[in-house]
Amino acid sequence: MNRRKFLKAAGVGVAASAVFTTNLYAKSVTRLKVCLSWPKTLPIMGEGALWFAKRVDELSGGSLKIHIYGANELVPALGVFDACSKGLIDGFHSGPYYWKGKNMAFALFSSFPFGMVADELEPWFDFAGGMDLWRELYARYNLMPFKGGNTGNQMGGWFRKPIKSLADMKGLKMRIPGLGGEVMARLGVKPVNIPGGEIYTALERGVIDATEWVGPSLDTIMGFQKVARYYYTGWHEPGSILEMTFNKKKYERLPKEHQAIIEAATREMHARIFSEFQYQNALKLQDIISGKYDVKLGNFPDDVNEAAKKAIIEILNEYSNKSKDFAKVYENIKSFFPKIRKWTDTLPKWYLDIRDSGTIVD
Amino acid sequence: MNRRKFLKAAGVGVAASAVFTTNLYAKSVTRLKVCLSWPKTLPIMGEGALWFAKRVDELSGGSLKIHIYGANELVPALGVFDACSKGLIDGFHSGPYYWKGKNMAFALFSSFPFGMVADELEPWFDFAGGMDLWRELYARYNLMPFKGGNTGNQMGGWFRKPIKSLADMKGLKMRIPGLGGEVMARLGVKPVNIPGGEIYTALERGVIDATEWVGPSLDTIMGFQKVARYYYTGWHEPGSILEMTFNKKKYERLPKEHQAIIEAATREMHARIFSEFQYQNALKLQDIISGKYDVKLGNFPDDVNEAAKKAIIEILNEYSNKSKDFAKVYENIKSFFPKIRKWTDTLPKWYLDIRDSGTIVD
Repeated sequence: MNRRKFLKAAGVGVAASAVFTTNLYAKSVTRLKVCLSWPKTLPIMGEGALWFAKRVDELSGGSLKIHIYGANELVPALGVFDACSKGLIDGFHSGPYYWKGKNMAFALFSSFPFGMVADELEPWFDFAGGMDLWRELYARYNLMPFKGGNTGNQMGGWFRKPIKSLADMKGLKMRIPGLGGEVMARLGVKPVNIPGGEIYTALERGVIDATEWVGPSLDTIMGFQKVARYYYTGWHEPGSILEMTFNKKKYERLPKEHQAIIEAATREMHARIFSEFQYQNALKLQDIISGKYDVKLGNFPDDVNEAAKKAIIEILNEYSNKSKDFAKVYENIKSFFPKIRKWTDTLPKWYLDIRDSGTIVD
Repeated sequence: MNRRKFLKAAGVGVAASAVFTTNLYAKSVTRLKVCLSWPKTLPIMGEGALWFAKRVDELSGGSLKIHIYGANELVPALGVFDACSKGLIDGFHSGPYYWKGKNMAFALFSSFPFGMVADELEPWFDFAGGMDLWRELYARYNLMPFKGGNTGNQMGGWFRKPIKSLADMKGLKMRIPGLGGEVMARLGVKPVNIPGGEIYTALERGVIDATEWVGPSLDTIMGFQKVARYYYTGWHEPGSILEMTFNKKKYERLPKEHQAIIEAATREMHARIFSEFQYQNALKLQDIISGKYDVKLGNFPDDVNEAAKKAIIEILNEYSNKSKDFAKVYENIKSFFPKIRKWTDTLPKWYLDIRDSGTIVD
């Protein structure tokens, strides 16, 4: 009996090729197409997705291959949700707040103005119901989300003129998407949405007066320090969660080992992206405060912050009245947020306060 | 040709059994013994190690089995480092500061008084050289460490009498190990070390006046709220890193897929343990502030904190003079810590300050 006949007689198909391999795994290869909402070359985020693909390859002994496509290579940057929902692609790396037009509640999974920070979002997702709610709502679109990174606290943005009081915000054209943009609108700002690649020129030419992006990590790569002198800290995205989301039916048809590998590798990527944002923010902030650029670093004035707090409460309540899904997720957040914030304020924040002066690194 | 003859003719051994399995992986099973420095049943930490073992099983399709042994089941709680170094066991879940008797520098991998918090330690380990230094020093003991969890900020401890000024610390017998204990000694405290299981009785009977443990998450399970009325926040362990460490030769002989699986699963466990500490701290702190127990929650007075800051600087400098390894790790920390702390203070800490009142969760 030759090999082909033996295999047929033994009733085995694909897995049989493992007989002639030296590694532990069968050589049947599953390939998944994952599209990004940003370029593959974008530091930290695009590079994080490429790292994820490499990791899955290692973990699966080459039996699961993730093919990464940058924004607009296969589908448009913001077409990834629909394409994946329909099964045209298998997964995507993006941010849940991009899809609030489909369901307002999705905005809450990215973090929101004056909301939870990374260390508070982790237990909310893992143990307090956040992930269950996210998966329940995404299941309606045949999608299965995983956490795909956290940017950490995002900077308030770059301004061509200084903001000395709330009055200075009125009438400013600012590139700021999501709930942060809605808050800004209530402060008199005119929020506009411009694709990443066009922001620099718009700011340089004065088509816009201000823009937010991420933080020192990525902003200085965009070159904003050359065209806007005032750089403000912020509260609009206190810890933005990214997503690595898969077509649910496709995911569920994977062998359970591959499902576990995707879960483990996304969690690693999630942690790694946050860690690298922290690292790059530390390094790039040094450039800014060292005087390498002609940039003034500062905080928004108190009246801006207080007006913004009032605005976000109004907005969250209005959305809760408009959308049952939003109300459900927001109620869950309201049951956990005060508890975790009390912990944050009691020890982690207190520690940062007392560490602030006279310690080993001064 | 019958099956046995075919397999022989094909020149394949172990991997051949994969032909008749339904999962993707070969059925050759590698087994590793991992011992803990705490009971398997210890919430968050012991349970985290059990979760790790289950995860490795799922990721490897059952081809890599981690057998978890609680403290003293196979080797003594603090005998795991030596046992693993010699190859008597394959891995251990513990904390690097337990081994400062072997090399003082190890204490620095756990975090130290007034040092980095979890979100600062992550980039230090991943990108600023921390992990490389740890692996370099552990390699001398034939060990390969991975991050194995972070407790987050630890509470200063439980005291039978209130601490109103530095004078109240003098002469107190306190259970506090590590560099925190050395700082306390310079404030006039008599630090003692008592096994976990004996602390409650010692505190109840007044053999000791105070003890630290972890935080609300685990302390209330120990019952300290019944025998000490004053519970203080702290600075002695601002973000203690746990370790999941393997025998280096054994690890290096594993197939690369299994190496990747251990790396991914430890990273998942690391993130999960921190997330669960945050969750449990949030819940258990509620019990304390709700008046469920007769406990006064407070901060150490300023003169205690300032004296402690001075003490840790002295201690770190003294160790640097005594140990080249300590000096090398400390120099690396001193090159990164100011940069990441500047970022922490500029935005994450500022955000917590301005979020503090009038927001959605009040």
